[in-house]
Amino acid sequence: MTTRKAQGVFCPVLTPFNSDYSVSTPRFIKHCQNIIDQGAGLAVFGTNSEANSLSLAEKLRLLDTLIEAGIPADRLMPGTGSCSIEESIALTRHATELGCAGALMLPPFYYKGVPDEGLYRNFAHIIDTIADARLRIYLYHIPQVSQVAISLPLIERLLRKYPKTIAGVKDSSGNWDNTQAMLRDFQPEGFDVFSGSETFLLATLRAGGAGCITATANVNASPIVALANSWQKDAADADAQQAQLIVLRKVFEQFPVIAAMKHTIAWQSQDSEWRTTRPPLVELDATASQKLEQDLSAIDYRLHGAETLQLA
Amino acid sequence: MTTRKAQGVFCPVLTPFNSDYSVSTPRFIKHCQNIIDQGAGLAVFGTNSEANSLSLAEKLRLLDTLIEAGIPADRLMPGTGSCSIEESIALTRHATELGCAGALMLPPFYYKGVPDEGLYRNFAHIIDTIADARLRIYLYHIPQVSQVAISLPLIERLLRKYPKTIAGVKDSSGNWDNTQAMLRDFQPEGFDVFSGSETFLLATLRAGGAGCITATANVNASPIVALANSWQKDAADADAQQAQLIVLRKVFEQFPVIAAMKHTIAWQSQDSEWRTTRPPLVELDATASQKLEQDLSAIDYRLHGAETLQLA
Repeated sequence: MTTRKAQGVFCPVLTPFNSDYSVSTPRFIKHCQNIIDQGAGLAVFGTNSEANSLSLAEKLRLLDTLIEAGIPADRLMPGTGSCSIEESIALTRHATELGCAGALMLPPFYYKGVPDEGLYRNFAHIIDTIADARLRIYLYHIPQVSQVAISLPLIERLLRKYPKTIAGVKDSSGNWDNTQAMLRDFQPEGFDVFSGSETFLLATLRAGGAGCITATANVNASPIVALANSWQKDAADADAQQAQLIVLRKVFEQFPVIAAMKHTIAWQSQDSEWRTTRPPLVELDATASQKLEQDLSAIDYRLHGAETLQLA
Repeated sequence: MTTRKAQGVFCPVLTPFNSDYSVSTPRFIKHCQNIIDQGAGLAVFGTNSEANSLSLAEKLRLLDTLIEAGIPADRLMPGTGSCSIEESIALTRHATELGCAGALMLPPFYYKGVPDEGLYRNFAHIIDTIADARLRIYLYHIPQVSQVAISLPLIERLLRKYPKTIAGVKDSSGNWDNTQAMLRDFQPEGFDVFSGSETFLLATLRAGGAGCITATANVNASPIVALANSWQKDAADADAQQAQLIVLRKVFEQFPVIAAMKHTIAWQSQDSEWRTTRPPLVELDATASQKLEQDLSAIDYRLHGAETLQLA
């Protein structure tokens, strides 16, 4: 059985860019610190981080930068899976050597309709090559984006061969039946199930799961963490907290979420550079920006720590 | 108007691996030389090259290796598009500085449903950053794999802004209506249309297109090149050649094509290591391998230069 190293709420941290599309390292560090201060861990280099729009070299450097800035390695669960097995190995090894809590791994996602055997070989070769007892892999299931799924039989096969290393999953399918099946089949073996959004946070925790890894932790970490920390105290109160989280999430789900969250941080911290996305993503247009601000104002939204995000 | 630099037949060269999944550089060089000897150019790092399963560092190194091995740079059209704009820039710049005929560029393919504006920015930023008059970009349209299309309006917009740099397209959609539209709308402006397989080679040439970039050139280069070189001499003979090409192609299309072509080279050159694919792809199973060999034997197939592919 794996030791439950990571639990609670993790945030796939937005990556701030300068207007020339280079990474804004000072903004990145400040944003990471703000999320850590609210009690969430950092799943840097996730889908919402535009991680696949970053180079391997940029990701290696940013990880070092966070450690140098004092972010505790055991609060980091970087995304390390790429189409190239060599690049997956390089980033996963570096994260492991830095002492990160785990590595959140996409399957290779260029080829579609690949057999589970090929995906098994991908993860097995990465694990065998790194050959480090500290390695903890969290499988990343997000078929609507990657178009390559992490099936239940694949998890079962990997877990049987690598019970200490295959530590859990992020289920971003949005399909609660699938999350339930993972919770039922694998959580009892110490395989930690994280839902891919706070929409299913309470349901996941009540079913014995580990927590959630959710995009909106970029703009709403404190209340999500509060539910993860308090859900066992009072069931009715937990239900009410869960309902409140969904109200905010639904505001963001009206828009392309990455651009909407970046706009929100730009607006709240009065730092328009935060709106920048790397191609192929684009920022919110004026109409959407206005609607987002109106909807957030209508529910009295304030970004936690917005003032500390401003650059000196 | 762009100068027609690249035309005829290009081969998305298979990448041979050792059984530990490392690239077999000697096999790669021999295979590239064999294809060059048959008169085709080398679209190394294509879909059929398992290019997205290679790291940027591996691709930079392999390109240098080919030049050092005496492959003429102007016969190379490497695939250089990746999800990461930084990596696309690095590989495209290197290919341009080496004097390659062009760069065949996938759009960034992780995010789905992205707007043309985001794809435009991707290509524009790459072109503006490299800022080299020698750069020739061939857009790579393969929506069934990348899930991100190169639309006609996107081509039109790029061509208007960068008429010298946007040199053409590989249309691997398999949709002849789309290829026809590109031939009609853009070929007259010197935008060279390559069909994505030899199935449409003759039709493309007759409509004024530049040629084809086709996977099966790995196992059938000479006859495909022969048609590209002779199609204007005798229409009936050209039709007959085209029909023969399709017979062979249909044999391969029964199987996962990369694994089938690798099996064919392994079989013909008596070098079983050639069967290796990188995860997430897998080699042909025994049943499929037997069927492939039978079908190829039934049409008296022989791999050109098979004996020279053997390692000393």
